[in-house]
This record gives sequence, C-alpha cells and structure tokens, in this order.
Amino acid sequence: MAGISNNEIKRVKALQQKKVRDESGLFIVEGEKMVQEALDSPFAVEAVYRKYEIGEDAMKRISALSNPSPALAVVRKPSDAYVDDLSAFDAALSEGGLYLALDSIRDPGNLGTILRIADWFGIKAVFATGDTVDLFNPKVVQATMGAIFRVRMHYVDLPALTRKVLDKGGKVYGTFLDGQNMYERPLDNGMHSPSVIVIGNESEGISDEIAGLVSDRLYIPPYPADQPGSESLNAAIATAITVAEFRRR
Amino acid sequence: MAGISNNEIKRVKALQQKKVRDESGLFIVEGEKMVQEALDSPFAVEAVYRKYEIGEDAMKRISALSNPSPALAVVRKPSDAYVDDLSAFDAALSEGGLYLALDSIRDPGNLGTILRIADWFGIKAVFATGDTVDLFNPKVVQATMGAIFRVRMHYVDLPALTRKVLDKGGKVYGTFLDGQNMYERPLDNGMHSPSVIVIGNESEGISDEIAGLVSDRLYIPPYPADQPGSESLNAAIATAITVAEFRRR
Repeated sequence: MAGISNNEIKRVKALQQKKVRDESGLFIVEGEKMVQEALDSPFAVEAVYRKYEIGEDAMKRISALSNPSPALAVVRKPSDAYVDDLSAFDAALSEGGLYLALDSIRDPGNLGTILRIADWFGIKAVFATGDTVDLFNPKVVQATMGAIFRVRMHYVDLPALTRKVLDKGGKVYGTFLDGQNMYERPLDNGMHSPSVIVIGNESEGISDEIAGLVSDRLYIPPYPADQPGSESLNAAIATAITVAEFRRR
Repeated sequence: MAGISNNEIKRVKALQQKKVRDESGLFIVEGEKMVQEALDSPFAVEAVYRKYEIGEDAMKRISALSNPSPALAVVRKPSDAYVDDLSAFDAALSEGGLYLALDSIRDPGNLGTILRIADWFGIKAVFATGDTVDLFNPKVVQATMGAIFRVRMHYVDLPALTRKVLDKGGKVYGTFLDGQNMYERPLDNGMHSPSVIVIGNESEGISDEIAGLVSDRLYIPPYPADQPGSESLNAAIATAITVAEFRRR
C-alpha cells in the first residue's frame, strides 16, 4: 500500500480553504468519475489518491465529503480563471456567442448547477463578479458533476465586461419582475454579436450598477399570468428556463 | 419574557425527526416570512415561538437552522398529505389539469425547488412515491420558500395513480435520453384530460415500473444538438425546463 505522509494529508486537506487554494493555485476533485474526467481534460492533475492505496483513514482525513469517495485528485486551476485585462476577450466576443454573467451568486449548489446548465446548452463562457462563490470550492466542484472541466468560467470586473459587450454591438439580457414577457419577443442567440444573460444574486437580484447596463429586460411569465400567490424562482431555475428559451429552435 | 419549558423545547426539537413528525402530525417552519405565510394559509398553526419572547438560547435549541431565525412555528400537516384511496382524486383528475409525479426524489433542496416551480407554473398537484424525501423535513420546508403552503402534494402509490390517469384518457410524460425532442411535438397542458409529468430519481432516473406506464417520452435537446461532452441535467432543472414548455403560449 502506497503511503501518504501526515504533511501531505495536511496540505491536501488545507485546499478546502479558499486562501490556500488561491496561494497554491490548486483545488480538489472527488469521486471516480470526476477524477477520470479531470484526467481526460486539459486540466493539469498534480496528484491522485485512491483509498486502496492510502487507506480509509487517510482518505477520510483529506476528503471534504461526509462519505469519502474512493478517489481524490489535486488539480491545478486553469490560468484564465481570474482575468484582469478584459482585452483578452476581444477576439472571442467579436465572434458573438451566448454568455452568462453571474452577479454575486453565493450558493455553491446554485453555481454548480448553473455550470451544468451552461454545459448542456453550449454556453461559450461564464463570467462572474469577484464576490461570486469560488468555483474551486469543493461543494461547487462536486455540484458541477464534471461541467467544471468543459465550461470556461472567468472572474472579472463584470460592469466593465458588460460595457465591452455593449460596445461591440452586443446585447445584455436580465430577468426582472417588470421585464418583457420572454416568449413575446425575439431573443438574440449571439450568432453575429455577443449576447450576455445576467443572473442576479439569490436574494438581492441584479445589482443596480449591472441593471443599468442591461439592454433587454426579460420576464418569465408565471401560469396563470395573473397568479397571485406565487413566489420568485430560484436563480438556477430562472437561468435554466431562460437559457433553454435562447437555445430553442 | 414568555418562557418555554425544557419539555416543550424537547418536543419541538424532536420534530426534526421524521418518526416524531409522523406520530404527531406536526412539522416546523422557520423565518418571519415563512411563519407569516403559515399564519395566512389554511394550515393549522399550533404554536409560534419568537426569539424576543423565549430568548436566544431556547431559539437555538429548537431551531433546525445553523443560524436560528427570529421566529419558528409548529404547524399541523395537511390531512391529504398521504392518500391511500386514490378514488379521492377521481373528480379532480376528470377535470384535467397539469400534475407532477415525483419518482423517488431524494434531495431536500431538489424537492423544495420543485415545489417552487410547481407554484410558479400553477401545477394542480404534485404526487410522489413513498420513498420520495419527506415534504415536512425542515430542509425541504425552508427550500420551498413558502410554496409548501400553496401547492398540494400527496404521497401515493404512484404506479396505481399513473394507471388511473391513463384510464381517464390522460397522458403520462417523462424525459428520457431516447425520447422525442420536446420542441418538435405537441404537449398536452391538461385542458381536457389530466397530464402528468414524471420526474425521475437524481441518479437512477425514472424507475422501470413507472417508465412502462409513460405514454409520451420526451427529450430536452442540448445545444448544439450533437454536443458530445455534456452531462445530464439536474432533476429540478429538467423539471423547470419541461414545465415552462408545457405552460408556454
């Protein structure tokens, strides 16, 4: 049985903390399927630990899960996760495409689910404010079910990115209670210029600064349209319904 | 300051256990907004505890939340949560309507989110297998954001219920990887006969028994349609996209 030193256990376990992930540029991935997807992806896998090699006790100590899985990998973060110079996106945005912009999504499960939606519907990239929950948080990583290895996500100055999209003749969509019925208007899929769909924070919605940059205010109508008692939809649910409609033929 | 006895604290706290909820017919609701919605609903509220009355320590002891809210209510479960005699639904089903059928949904967050979707889109009732997560589990209650007080949910013999829908000339829809593109076929909104949308378990999908009763197999197409790397969609996300499409004008 290959061993793992106490120091190594401590180093891996410490990757559950954002500060340590930021300093090291590493994060952890758990589960046979996820570890295999990491190995098959362009991401650099620094180490793989398997229960049958390091033992159950060590696995429990390095795992972020309440039920440790048989495999855990330490993976290097992609170099384009945090982008300061937005001109890096000039070429991609000039080609158009459909993008998501996350305005302070805080729930790890929501972010993971949104990445799965982006994966399913071929979203070109996901942009997010710096205060959006960390993509490399173990709960987010697991909730992506592997989408983290296929969808490009970038933490950026979101208002500046949004202005750049508008400058390129693109559209910025957002859902609001006083928006226009999504089914009664054309939606630009990004064939010629970039289209961005903004997803607001779980309790606060879209921030005033970003709301001021939204060019097209949308609304997902409830049923019946005048239904009185209904509450709002969850952020990931609103994302799913909106993105599906953009991708509908 | 009104007090709360140790025995009362124990009784309220015990409602976090399913066995105790089943025996007592009670469940707990937390948060000012949710407690107010309970009071405004047809549900019978047995007691309301407020932090300023019972003190912070007692509130912490009775709360199921890591951050106890200022208010907690003990509420009686509706009498139609568990229905053995399916003829109780004969009249409602004969009028038609759009229903959901949950086939072993296990994640509390998913069930809560599905109730919110049902609320938003005016679903007539939600049916579920007995092994679906308990609606009155505190995590589910909180995740419904109040939809629990507006959407009727019934634990039933789901295959028998499904057969009853077919007997009444209704349709039973389910999503499958080999189903028909949802956007390329008519979807019956339940105007004349009942329509049921089956939602499968998070990892296993729709069980063989229920799958054999599905009359219309649907598929949510990814984008692009031949996209190779994409994973499946989360159960609540697939529910949202499907239900929105049924309700679309």
